[in-house]
Amino acid sequence: MGTIVKQIIMGAFEINGVNLTSQGVWAHPEQQSYRYKDLSYWTDLAQLLEKGFFDFLFLADSYGYPSMNGETPDVAFEQAVEIPKNDPMLLVPALAAATSHLAFAVTTSTTFEAPFANARRFATLDHLTQGRIAWNVVTTSSAVVSDLFGRDGMIPHDERYAIAQEYLDVSYDLFEGGWDDDSVVADKSSRVYADPAKVHKIHHHGRYFRVDGYFNCEPSPQRTPVLFQAGSSASGQRFASQNAELVFLQGKDANTLKAQVANLRSGAVAAGRSSDAIKAIVGLSIVVAETHDEAVAKLDDFLSYVNPDAARIYYSSMTGIDLAKLDPERSFATVTTEGGRTQVERYKENTVREATADFLRNGMREFIMVGTPVEIADQIEALVEETGIDGFNYTPFVSPGSYRDLVELVVPELQRRGLMRTSYPAGTFRERLFGEGAARLPATHPGASHRTALADASA
Amino acid sequence: MGTIVKQIIMGAFEINGVNLTSQGVWAHPEQQSYRYKDLSYWTDLAQLLEKGFFDFLFLADSYGYPSMNGETPDVAFEQAVEIPKNDPMLLVPALAAATSHLAFAVTTSTTFEAPFANARRFATLDHLTQGRIAWNVVTTSSAVVSDLFGRDGMIPHDERYAIAQEYLDVSYDLFEGGWDDDSVVADKSSRVYADPAKVHKIHHHGRYFRVDGYFNCEPSPQRTPVLFQAGSSASGQRFASQNAELVFLQGKDANTLKAQVANLRSGAVAAGRSSDAIKAIVGLSIVVAETHDEAVAKLDDFLSYVNPDAARIYYSSMTGIDLAKLDPERSFATVTTEGGRTQVERYKENTVREATADFLRNGMREFIMVGTPVEIADQIEALVEETGIDGFNYTPFVSPGSYRDLVELVVPELQRRGLMRTSYPAGTFRERLFGEGAARLPATHPGASHRTALADASA
Repeated sequence: MGTIVKQIIMGAFEINGVNLTSQGVWAHPEQQSYRYKDLSYWTDLAQLLEKGFFDFLFLADSYGYPSMNGETPDVAFEQAVEIPKNDPMLLVPALAAATSHLAFAVTTSTTFEAPFANARRFATLDHLTQGRIAWNVVTTSSAVVSDLFGRDGMIPHDERYAIAQEYLDVSYDLFEGGWDDDSVVADKSSRVYADPAKVHKIHHHGRYFRVDGYFNCEPSPQRTPVLFQAGSSASGQRFASQNAELVFLQGKDANTLKAQVANLRSGAVAAGRSSDAIKAIVGLSIVVAETHDEAVAKLDDFLSYVNPDAARIYYSSMTGIDLAKLDPERSFATVTTEGGRTQVERYKENTVREATADFLRNGMREFIMVGTPVEIADQIEALVEETGIDGFNYTPFVSPGSYRDLVELVVPELQRRGLMRTSYPAGTFRERLFGEGAARLPATHPGASHRTALADASA
Repeated sequence: MGTIVKQIIMGAFEINGVNLTSQGVWAHPEQQSYRYKDLSYWTDLAQLLEKGFFDFLFLADSYGYPSMNGETPDVAFEQAVEIPKNDPMLLVPALAAATSHLAFAVTTSTTFEAPFANARRFATLDHLTQGRIAWNVVTTSSAVVSDLFGRDGMIPHDERYAIAQEYLDVSYDLFEGGWDDDSVVADKSSRVYADPAKVHKIHHHGRYFRVDGYFNCEPSPQRTPVLFQAGSSASGQRFASQNAELVFLQGKDANTLKAQVANLRSGAVAAGRSSDAIKAIVGLSIVVAETHDEAVAKLDDFLSYVNPDAARIYYSSMTGIDLAKLDPERSFATVTTEGGRTQVERYKENTVREATADFLRNGMREFIMVGTPVEIADQIEALVEETGIDGFNYTPFVSPGSYRDLVELVVPELQRRGLMRTSYPAGTFRERLFGEGAARLPATHPGASHRTALADASA
């Protein structure tokens, strides 16, 4: 191994529901995710993550559930595929109170939430967490969700990103431009709370959104939450290059991942940002045991719970591709899907048969590492060195068991190698990612330009 | 005093912001409401309320702030009149984790939140609080908020209630009709989570809303949150008679209040519900001290912090009435306002001059009781007996000081008289209001009819 110069970022990939990515594994004896409705399940988990020096809990979300030709197959309910699930944002305040350092990345959609309400929610969370909040920006593509929200049909892929960009622009207005840094005096002796000259009316009249008025929320530690993104299409990548501060990549092998990381860095530079302005993480699952063979047996045991029908409809729900309807010998590289390019790229050198076999076994997981603590630390170290990836979104097989395994068995080994911290630094989540003093968006981020004085009749 | 047969309901009236109803009192030395951004301020308060056997924390809300002729006067920012403020719903999970019995009433608007998203949030909170959630349903009437949400103008008052009724109808579909009581099996041995035959697609195609599909959330303890309402117009009262389970009345004297309570009970009966199907509460502030004179001096001290300009714009923001523009000798009974009848009724026997003087002194408060613990308990007991009111929404002058005064000095006296409980019963919030076993909406509530089998292609 060469010289490792950086500590890795570690996130926990979760959903506020029964199943994560391996459909059927909810029924494994060690799986406790069915307790997702209990606050104590989540507060215990958050404290375990903090014990293991995780950076953040990532809460994936969508209002959608599987639907094939307009029908939801019975197996979706029987195996709890994406349904039931609860709102993930509402976990955060309780978890913030139960922890001191762990950050929280919450997913909301630029297609279905009103920008003003969304901004007020994130500003509130930035206050309540004291700067430990991130926003995973998604652009929803789902006929199911359109029907739940009374919208007419699906929005074309590229237009979704145009909407998302305007949504971010008005969000930057609110987060960055609404209240000057020194607007709040809160001086009881002079009886002045805020300086009216330093609170600015937002005037956004765009193609998709109109917001006229004052932002409800006084300045929070980070203002704009740390921006996460996961889109892998051309327009998704362009959107990420311009806006994202952390991107969740989905490469499945080191070569693909290395190219994605390099692409992300050059995209940031092309957008006028520094090459390290965007952190890159990838999904990671581990199965660890005292011996390699025990670990392999443990993985096989987990995967024996996968329900193939449930896995297939989950895949279809994520990508729009029904694996059962494709010629098994067809090259997967020829399969295209509206917005779902990731899955195709992942299997671009495989046949449909091979891709299906892999997916039914591994779900939507990216890297799966199996072995002893030292073997796993070796693999992590090698992958980081080879690809330049900044960290991982840890995806458990069972919860909290898979977290406990990582925290108790692998984290100490990663700490010995200098790959993980042994204490949390002070400061906001953005400072932990980008260094002391970097609580706010940097000057080269497009959001920073929304800080300049806005046209304001009352100022 | 006669025989008191019932314990009173006690709520705490709050907003997730700097100021409540007495504008300017934020600057009082004992006032800590400026700490509203800190979770510990709220968790400490919630624990104090539970120590004092409060039933619920009521979180008022609006996205609006004062605006007169399209401009927000400087004093609004200087005195923090309705701005800044944060999202109140996001306090609840942390407060639920910090308490065991206290319930939470969260305000959301049927004009600005999507019904599906709103229902998912409340169902999530009902799960996380284990049945301690209420929804204060408001129909927003605000040009300010319309502009923040890019809506065209204000919706006429009566139409807002038509929208609200359809909003509740589709919410009942989701809460009550989406999942049968025995739909979730969660049986690991048979590997079945939910029974597909018992999960029902919602088909709501109304005038204002369309929702087609499955509700995300499995059955929560109360399903429909306990429904709070505060509208006092004719359409507001009709809406309350049909839907509300607790109404926040705004009478300022015993006679008015008594008539309002009687009106509410007969309205419930006219809507086919029982006369005690709707609990009635009214605002209550107290200033208590060892001696009567000390209490009076304490009230004067609080009120010396009221800023008259701030109070005036706050009144205008709440009612649409600019007191400074009215003839001081005019009868207040002749002043009418779109949807703001409450304030007019309150002062119907006063001149504009008298109403203004009262409002500038007392803000939007209803009953203010001043004196020793025994004097205050006497007044509470008499008011309950005389009016039939079920309880109070306690509105502090300073926080947490006014709560501590009530909890430490008055609650013990109320407990001695049998007016307040000495321990919390088990069960959900609805059971605490309506008795053991009443966790769900009763059969006579219109929401209950949404439980019957819905047209469902997949069932």
